[in-house]
Amino acid sequence: MSGNTLGTLFCVTNFGESHGPAIGCVIDGCPPGMALAEADIQADLDRRRPGTSRHVTQRNEPDAVEILSGVYEGRTTGTPIALLIRNQDQRSKDYGDILRTFRPGHADYAYWHKYGLRDPRGGGRSSARLTAPTVAAGAVAKKWLAEKYGTRFRACMTQLGELPIPFEGWEHVPNNPFFAPVADVQRYEDYMDQLRKAHDSCGARLRVQATGVPAGLGEPLYDRLDADIAHAMMGLNAVKGVEIGAGFASVAQRGTTHGDALTPQGFAGNNAGGVLGGISTGQDIEVAIAIKPTSSILSPRPSIDIDGQPVEVVTKGRHDPCVGIRAAPIAEALLALVLMDHALRQRAQCGDVVKAVPPIPASI
Amino acid sequence: MSGNTLGTLFCVTNFGESHGPAIGCVIDGCPPGMALAEADIQADLDRRRPGTSRHVTQRNEPDAVEILSGVYEGRTTGTPIALLIRNQDQRSKDYGDILRTFRPGHADYAYWHKYGLRDPRGGGRSSARLTAPTVAAGAVAKKWLAEKYGTRFRACMTQLGELPIPFEGWEHVPNNPFFAPVADVQRYEDYMDQLRKAHDSCGARLRVQATGVPAGLGEPLYDRLDADIAHAMMGLNAVKGVEIGAGFASVAQRGTTHGDALTPQGFAGNNAGGVLGGISTGQDIEVAIAIKPTSSILSPRPSIDIDGQPVEVVTKGRHDPCVGIRAAPIAEALLALVLMDHALRQRAQCGDVVKAVPPIPASI
Amino acid sequence: MSGNTLGTLFCVTNFGESHGPAIGCVIDGCPPGMALAEADIQADLDRRRPGTSRHVTQRNEPDAVEILSGVYEGRTTGTPIALLIRNQDQRSKDYGDILRTFRPGHADYAYWHKYGLRDPRGGGRSSARLTAPTVAAGAVAKKWLAEKYGTRFRACMTQLGELPIPFEGWEHVPNNPFFAPVADVQRYEDYMDQLRKAHDSCGARLRVQATGVPAGLGEPLYDRLDADIAHAMMGLNAVKGVEIGAGFASVAQRGTTHGDALTPQGFAGNNAGGVLGGISTGQDIEVAIAIKPTSSILSPRPSIDIDGQPVEVVTKGRHDPCVGIRAAPIAEALLALVLMDHALRQRAQCGDVVKAVPPIPASI
Amino acid sequence: MSGNTLGTLFCVTNFGESHGPAIGCVIDGCPPGMALAEADIQADLDRRRPGTSRHVTQRNEPDAVEILSGVYEGRTTGTPIALLIRNQDQRSKDYGDILRTFRPGHADYAYWHKYGLRDPRGGGRSSARLTAPTVAAGAVAKKWLAEKYGTRFRACMTQLGELPIPFEGWEHVPNNPFFAPVADVQRYEDYMDQLRKAHDSCGARLRVQATGVPAGLGEPLYDRLDADIAHAMMGLNAVKGVEIGAGFASVAQRGTTHGDALTPQGFAGNNAGGVLGGISTGQDIEVAIAIKPTSSILSPRPSIDIDGQPVEVVTKGRHDPCVGIRAAPIAEALLALVLMDHALRQRAQCGDVVKAVPPIPASI
Repeated sequence: MSGNTLGTLFCVTNFGESHGPAIGCVIDGCPPGMALAEADIQADLDRRRPGTSRHVTQRNEPDAVEILSGVYEGRTTGTPIALLIRNQDQRSKDYGDILRTFRPGHADYAYWHKYGLRDPRGGGRSSARLTAPTVAAGAVAKKWLAEKYGTRFRACMTQLGELPIPFEGWEHVPNNPFFAPVADVQRYEDYMDQLRKAHDSCGARLRVQATGVPAGLGEPLYDRLDADIAHAMMGLNAVKGVEIGAGFASVAQRGTTHGDALTPQGFAGNNAGGVLGGISTGQDIEVAIAIKPTSSILSPRPSIDIDGQPVEVVTKGRHDPCVGIRAAPIAEALLALVLMDHALRQRAQCGDVVKAVPPIPASI
Repeated sequence: MSGNTLGTLFCVTNFGESHGPAIGCVIDGCPPGMALAEADIQADLDRRRPGTSRHVTQRNEPDAVEILSGVYEGRTTGTPIALLIRNQDQRSKDYGDILRTFRPGHADYAYWHKYGLRDPRGGGRSSARLTAPTVAAGAVAKKWLAEKYGTRFRACMTQLGELPIPFEGWEHVPNNPFFAPVADVQRYEDYMDQLRKAHDSCGARLRVQATGVPAGLGEPLYDRLDADIAHAMMGLNAVKGVEIGAGFASVAQRGTTHGDALTPQGFAGNNAGGVLGGISTGQDIEVAIAIKPTSSILSPRPSIDIDGQPVEVVTKGRHDPCVGIRAAPIAEALLALVLMDHALRQRAQCGDVVKAVPPIPASI
Repeated sequence: MSGNTLGTLFCVTNFGESHGPAIGCVIDGCPPGMALAEADIQADLDRRRPGTSRHVTQRNEPDAVEILSGVYEGRTTGTPIALLIRNQDQRSKDYGDILRTFRPGHADYAYWHKYGLRDPRGGGRSSARLTAPTVAAGAVAKKWLAEKYGTRFRACMTQLGELPIPFEGWEHVPNNPFFAPVADVQRYEDYMDQLRKAHDSCGARLRVQATGVPAGLGEPLYDRLDADIAHAMMGLNAVKGVEIGAGFASVAQRGTTHGDALTPQGFAGNNAGGVLGGISTGQDIEVAIAIKPTSSILSPRPSIDIDGQPVEVVTKGRHDPCVGIRAAPIAEALLALVLMDHALRQRAQCGDVVKAVPPIPASI
Repeated sequence: MSGNTLGTLFCVTNFGESHGPAIGCVIDGCPPGMALAEADIQADLDRRRPGTSRHVTQRNEPDAVEILSGVYEGRTTGTPIALLIRNQDQRSKDYGDILRTFRPGHADYAYWHKYGLRDPRGGGRSSARLTAPTVAAGAVAKKWLAEKYGTRFRACMTQLGELPIPFEGWEHVPNNPFFAPVADVQRYEDYMDQLRKAHDSCGARLRVQATGVPAGLGEPLYDRLDADIAHAMMGLNAVKGVEIGAGFASVAQRGTTHGDALTPQGFAGNNAGGVLGGISTGQDIEVAIAIKPTSSILSPRPSIDIDGQPVEVVTKGRHDPCVGIRAAPIAEALLALVLMDHALRQRAQCGDVVKAVPPIPASI
């Protein structure tokens, strides 16, 4: 299987380039009979859309999705769902000067060496714009999981550059452009304004969560649920680290404290992040990701051209100074796609009936 | 594809349980014509083997590997290579008391809920013993990559519980039972002795590195090289976090410092960890993993039984107080398997010939 | 992996329904650097197009293909190639009367039982119209194989209903609407005219051939080249039989006559059809397929409705009285897709260099 | 996915060579909780075993299977089931003379050109001996399908060389060494005796059937049930043709007769062979396969050696003069493996509950 398909049973095949005619995806394996309309998908696309605040790229894209197939009279038919998003605001002239040079920290160097040629327009295939089809497919997965199991997804920013963001509550997340779980984001607004003036960029840390997850999802030995979550998250542009549950903090924990005690009322903690032995436990899935600073910045950087000669690179055009700002809906979508795939894999092997298990609430 | 196969072209299918008759794997897709003998594989198995110091499980297993197929007159034939390791020291009576209870932090709860039954003998399928076939397969991948590209793999422990381990040099790693890159490990010996007396366990942090990596490996959009590395590493027992290059530290970096400058002599740094846009750059691959403390400990823990009734669980038997101690060869093997698979994927699509690229040394 | 993707390395994911907004496919895994334009694809689409003679469906579809991605400045980039064909002549009212009944011999019964619902417009997903994206993808594979190995594909009709068609020469095939290898097709014109008047349909037998095939393609034990050819061909609408080389005639052959003798000048025959042990030999690939008569006919047939009650079914609308007439370009495309996939698989495992083999011409 | 794995969810990975230490397979994806013992598998292996009559190879192999994993206390655990068969009667000296020459019609030429080297002992990987693990895996699939749906499999020979075998009844099949559905097989015994004296070999035609097949199995557009059946059957050694239902006879049928009429009591015929639109209908699955004559014969044949020089080849050693004689249990196993895989795929996407469909008996 080639690399542009995510999932083994709920398969999302992504296509398109940042400044080509269109981007989109084909979802193969969606169960039949689910009500689905473009509006179900558009909501998440709008959360990811560029141009919604001064802290993200000013590229103006409505990202309107068209369902080309797989839905008849408002219901999924079980056949492939093709989703199409036409590109509109392309301005490819902005990128002409980078065709012969490599940006430090950017994918263009690697693409050039892999394929021997590359589409330089807006980063071509390596653009974060290609996360839009992922978000669209994730919306379909979210809907099915919500209807079937009551599973819900949410994500928030927990650090912006050097600034940790305290967790005040999920209710704040939709109310600010940072997906930050705090009431007052002035500090982060100021930080971003300074960064922009400095012609620089910064990283971010995000928390991603799924609740209402059925126990039993995950396919050890290798396709563990946490392994596939890590695959999906590390595959998101600019991500350099992934944690499940206690993550790197578990290194310094002792066995007597790390293992979440079980009680008749449920688990007494969630250091596991919802996964033991690569299989979901029914606890919430808890994931953290590290996003590196954007490589496309206005500050000059030393680099080389395709002939190996030294050059100084400045990236003009419209770029996100912190790609982490728009990453929350993408990370939710990726987590949903992984859980969806594993839900189908689980019922393939073990059937759809609920097994007779002890009546343990998933968490207390 | 079911979950016990790692890789898409260099496919490793793992089988066996900790206390069943045998464990092993089938490698499908190995290029023909490579010299291969059991001794090539045994060396890495011996590095992972239990019972080699007082800090690991005292289970006595020679882990002798038998090549059942795929090799004729000392050379791989291109057909499946089946590797068999018979289990010998099984003592399944040690585990009889855990059949009806769940260990906090252990996979047995999740296996029970997934499959409706489980093999309790030594953790069954969830035992870390099942990493032995992974190590064996990794030895085959290492050999091919070394001969073809000069790629080399190594790993070391960088933190043991609360104790960070300074990096003094790779040459120390084979000389101590911790795979620690330091000359004097007395401090870590003492730490482990105290931990064992306290009937507790601890976590560890490891660094994994590949050098001599060809540029161009990785299959975006989804099967990026870093994504598949994260999948493999997070799929290793007890791993709760994975970083590539600067990892979580990249959150607080600026774009002006994170992006590794390119010079005519090579890259001026390695925050990327050898991967940009999901594709190898020719820099060293640098990975870090977080390993949680072992869940099987002698200290009593509150839990429940399969009827949901409260119980106190104490895990007797032979267990590693820190599974991170033996993890270095396993992590190397996983990294080798991922690179091997992507080397084959790369030449499938882009061919085997070296592309005309600027003469940049990979790193300076 | 879900069922709408053909191939493992050269992956074609097909989407769309007969009367939905559009049909198309995504090709993932095409090697970079190949010149490709819509005209390269349109030529084969035009050979398959409906409405080109009175013997095929009169649906009027230009089947104009749009390349949405994967091509930059006229060359493939190695990223997914999305191909879109908008549906135009849809007349879905023609099909309203079949929503509650099942046509004998038609897929609608099976779709209903599989998915619990179906798109009745023009057969929905089961329509032969969905072979158009396959033909489009096949054109890309043909181009690459022709440039790389000089491989060529052709197909012709060898039987129309009860009428065997003698083989006079490949040069006649493009000159008549039946893809028949004969100079004079009047007999077949008359046959089809009578069939149409009788409100009936008929089957056909086709021969499909590839020349210039490199030796060594095929992945035994299970993914043999002939196995994958059979998979592709039997997966074509209405196909009920597949033969390689001597096919069913080999049952009555003796070993002394069946096995193609090898001479210093090449093979002395081709009972093998170009495949031995599941691997190409360099002989021409020779395939035959049996196509059943169309199930959508104007003659009344006994059937049942979705409540299991007896009904009489007459299928109005526009249908091919012999789907075999337009099948030649589709069968060529399928053979090309299988060879393309195996060419990439071969060089993944065994490399791209020509092995030192005895200088045997593939056929004499 | 490499080529030695059959299936996407019920995955059988085959390993071993004819004269290596062992052959076997790993089954990944078997549902948990099914009773399984070696005796369940041995029965089918014994039906395929060599040396049971004078008409098959006299190699003496008990083909005793050992279950290495995946079963605990007599029940499948849902983890990989590894099956091992040690080779015993190897006599590799018989094959020494063929190392530098190619047998007309044999896989050795193709293996040599693919891999650049080959294991000549008993045909190595290309030996029909490698069907034993397939049969073993098929026995597991048969058991699950029988318990779950009441599905049953059987196969018989319908032609031996030039001799068609009339169908008198399934009850005769186990009572003669030919799997022939006739009471008196003297004619076939004589035929084989003459063939053996003539140092020649012959082909065979087999019929393979599954009854009690649930409707809805098959994954169009490409992984249709009939496509996957054709893949499995054409992948069997020596098979050159595959038919579903009416097969090649459907070419000369009319639409008014081919399409199986539906009645409230069920289907009125089975030209479909149990598959419409690539999906099972609940009718019996009916398959026919053509098996070519064995290439390893005592009669001298013109050929070449690895330097391209002309030679005369005579194959000594022990070979089946008609591999079709032992093919019935293998063909059954392949059909079972395909149905098993599709049963799991069907419940992954569409769930395990029986859909509300009209109460039509599958066949009358």
